[in-house]
Amino acid sequence: MENSIAVVGSGLVGAVLAMSLKDRGFDVTVYDKSEDIRKVDFSGRSINLALSERGWKMLRKIGLEDSIREMAIPMFQRAIHTQDGKVNYQPYGINGESIWAVSRGNLNKKLVDLAEERGVKFAFQTPVWGVDLERGVLFSAEKESDQWDEIKHNLIFGADGAYSRVRLQMQKHSQFEYQQSYLTIGYKELIIPADVEGKHQLDKNSFHIWPRKDFMLIALANTDGSFTCTLFMPFEGEVSFNAIQNISDLNVFFDIYFPDAKTMMPDLEKLYFRNPVNSLVTMKCFPWIYGDKAALIGDAAHAVVPFYGQGLNAGLEDIDVLTHIFDGAENKDWKKILQKYQDIRKPNGDAIAELSYRNFQEMSELTADPMFLLRKRIETNFSKKYPELWLPLYDRVTFSGGTYLEALKIGDIQKEIMDEVMQIDRIEHIWNSPEIEEIMKRAIQCACKETRDKD
Amino acid sequence: MENSIAVVGSGLVGAVLAMSLKDRGFDVTVYDKSEDIRKVDFSGRSINLALSERGWKMLRKIGLEDSIREMAIPMFQRAIHTQDGKVNYQPYGINGESIWAVSRGNLNKKLVDLAEERGVKFAFQTPVWGVDLERGVLFSAEKESDQWDEIKHNLIFGADGAYSRVRLQMQKHSQFEYQQSYLTIGYKELIIPADVEGKHQLDKNSFHIWPRKDFMLIALANTDGSFTCTLFMPFEGEVSFNAIQNISDLNVFFDIYFPDAKTMMPDLEKLYFRNPVNSLVTMKCFPWIYGDKAALIGDAAHAVVPFYGQGLNAGLEDIDVLTHIFDGAENKDWKKILQKYQDIRKPNGDAIAELSYRNFQEMSELTADPMFLLRKRIETNFSKKYPELWLPLYDRVTFSGGTYLEALKIGDIQKEIMDEVMQIDRIEHIWNSPEIEEIMKRAIQCACKETRDKD
Repeated sequence: MENSIAVVGSGLVGAVLAMSLKDRGFDVTVYDKSEDIRKVDFSGRSINLALSERGWKMLRKIGLEDSIREMAIPMFQRAIHTQDGKVNYQPYGINGESIWAVSRGNLNKKLVDLAEERGVKFAFQTPVWGVDLERGVLFSAEKESDQWDEIKHNLIFGADGAYSRVRLQMQKHSQFEYQQSYLTIGYKELIIPADVEGKHQLDKNSFHIWPRKDFMLIALANTDGSFTCTLFMPFEGEVSFNAIQNISDLNVFFDIYFPDAKTMMPDLEKLYFRNPVNSLVTMKCFPWIYGDKAALIGDAAHAVVPFYGQGLNAGLEDIDVLTHIFDGAENKDWKKILQKYQDIRKPNGDAIAELSYRNFQEMSELTADPMFLLRKRIETNFSKKYPELWLPLYDRVTFSGGTYLEALKIGDIQKEIMDEVMQIDRIEHIWNSPEIEEIMKRAIQCACKETRDKD
Repeated sequence: MENSIAVVGSGLVGAVLAMSLKDRGFDVTVYDKSEDIRKVDFSGRSINLALSERGWKMLRKIGLEDSIREMAIPMFQRAIHTQDGKVNYQPYGINGESIWAVSRGNLNKKLVDLAEERGVKFAFQTPVWGVDLERGVLFSAEKESDQWDEIKHNLIFGADGAYSRVRLQMQKHSQFEYQQSYLTIGYKELIIPADVEGKHQLDKNSFHIWPRKDFMLIALANTDGSFTCTLFMPFEGEVSFNAIQNISDLNVFFDIYFPDAKTMMPDLEKLYFRNPVNSLVTMKCFPWIYGDKAALIGDAAHAVVPFYGQGLNAGLEDIDVLTHIFDGAENKDWKKILQKYQDIRKPNGDAIAELSYRNFQEMSELTADPMFLLRKRIETNFSKKYPELWLPLYDRVTFSGGTYLEALKIGDIQKEIMDEVMQIDRIEHIWNSPEIEEIMKRAIQCACKETRDKD
């Protein structure tokens, strides 16, 4: 079994990683504690995915782009629903780019199908309770308290998500840096069903947001005419999940804050009280690898909150980088390959965690503050005029091929410049003037030079 | 078994906690994966303990003060060994207080003896692999991969140290905040044996330090005439554990940096290459409790680096606070008792973690900078003259009964004032003047007023 690799976790990243490794000649088995996802009704605790450029790049590489596009819906803009029922549209990407809504469950089923077709083996209902990292052994049993069986492989990938068991094993080793932190807001899934004709009740090519500062509702289209909605809100406090105790509380809350959405949700009461409130965790750790025996990938290595829509994209980019290193490696020495993978990806995992954490505020304040909107407009205008000088942060993260770390750094520089611009006297009147343009030009050129000199 | 409590971990905190609970009428069993410590030679990876006021307070409460004093050695001062072989003495405490050196192994044996005498049951070689927090069940087996047995108790205390299994179980629950971080310096234990007459080769009533900025050696007296020494040093780098690869490297290193200590260490070569390099972890988590079923205590709740000598003292203070709450509770409702314990101790656990982390620099720079020494002298002088206005941070942490959190806050205020004082022109000439005294008086009075107004 010189050639055998275990992938723990049959989620999206696990399935794509398994296929990628199988394509490179390895004998790959995917382990998952859950039942075969193709046999279960998938629902209840998943924010719909937004696939963007990084994710597509990896899917393209593995020849799946076309088959996945078929089940995805492009979103060219944000549709901002204000409390008085108006809708404002903000295009994504300054060049008409789009992100793509796709159902996590359907995508996962499809990926498992495709992986199986290519010869990847799946061991479902095979929970991994422990790992012997030295020996490359997985321990499995029906229950954790049962006698464990040993399963030996040459290399183990932990693609087992934010609560990774492979990582838990690493955590027991000395010198393992680890941090997990939860937001005080949680989320709950809701549905806007198709209308009587089976059509979407809202524009399907928009990412719908009802931003209300400390909480927000979002909606992403499904191919069956429905929208998967997610309500993000504090667990505790005046306006919170905890404050909604009964149907009357719920109706009052939606009547005040989301009256337009409410009219499209006939099953609101049922869904609200049936679906759980889920948590949002940010997890950072180091190292991600153990010699030539194990590595973490995707959420297992860098669990992020969903506010940049980059969780899956970051995981797929991990595979992109890993396979790129593998393909370029002369003697296919996994120790060196994993080391390089970690060197490249760890700083970017941290960066997307940070960017995702910051973006909740940005998303939820989208309409609250006219100065915030003006700020965005100044940026967009300048960027259109000087695309080589200024790519807005969102575009850099979502549509560019640059690293997350670079995006974070340049984003901070841009933020500093915009903070100063917004302090300029009478900015709301002169924002579209050559004077402001000149200030921004000089500031960004100067900052870029400083950064270059430092590096 | 209405009355049954499990304490996981038979270390110092576990043993004292078990006794305290037994004294209050509970049926207490202590579980430990290791052999009975009384049957093993204890050595190799323990920094000798420094017991200070908080620890003594708890030992007094449980009637153990006298028996433990017998095995402890008071240290009234720091003995600072400079590289040129000189020794400077700095008294601890402005009022002649002392801290007490005691061997971790001997103390632990003694505590297990005493606990057993009082009716505490010990289950050694009984590793706890998992915990069912809902049901108050411990899972044990010889090996983790064996079939686990269930052991049921009404309440479980995790006193199982920095790598707590009870905590690991809590970590798997949602909303558990967790952070572990290692220093880039490690430590190795060495010995200065007794001289031919069985006497101490250095003053036994001093805490000996050889501070060398990025690394240091310390020595604490044992009752048998020897000193337990600890070398703290970076793992990697020019001067590091990694840089000492053979006997010649070792001798050169000690000849340069610790020539005086070296002459007292006949077994240096043997011990250095036999003893492991150990890691230093800081761990913070939240919550510490699970309903009325489980609680973390001591290092399991707040693992700190050893540079304030407060690790054990903080753990014993946990027990002091917990038993104080228990004794005052009207209906002995463990849910409320544990909640209150957490409310009081969590901020203080964080505070001592922070203080301990900061103190490495302070300890290792003790001689490096004359301005640093001047600063200490100014503080000490002022404190002696105005004890009601200024208690130095070390004294507050080590000898006062105030909380760690208070110590941290007031310490920060004092630091700010001293930073400013040290900026005063010609401070090295005028430091002992009424002018400086007046400046400090006004600054600390003003800062205290501000703090009071804020609270």
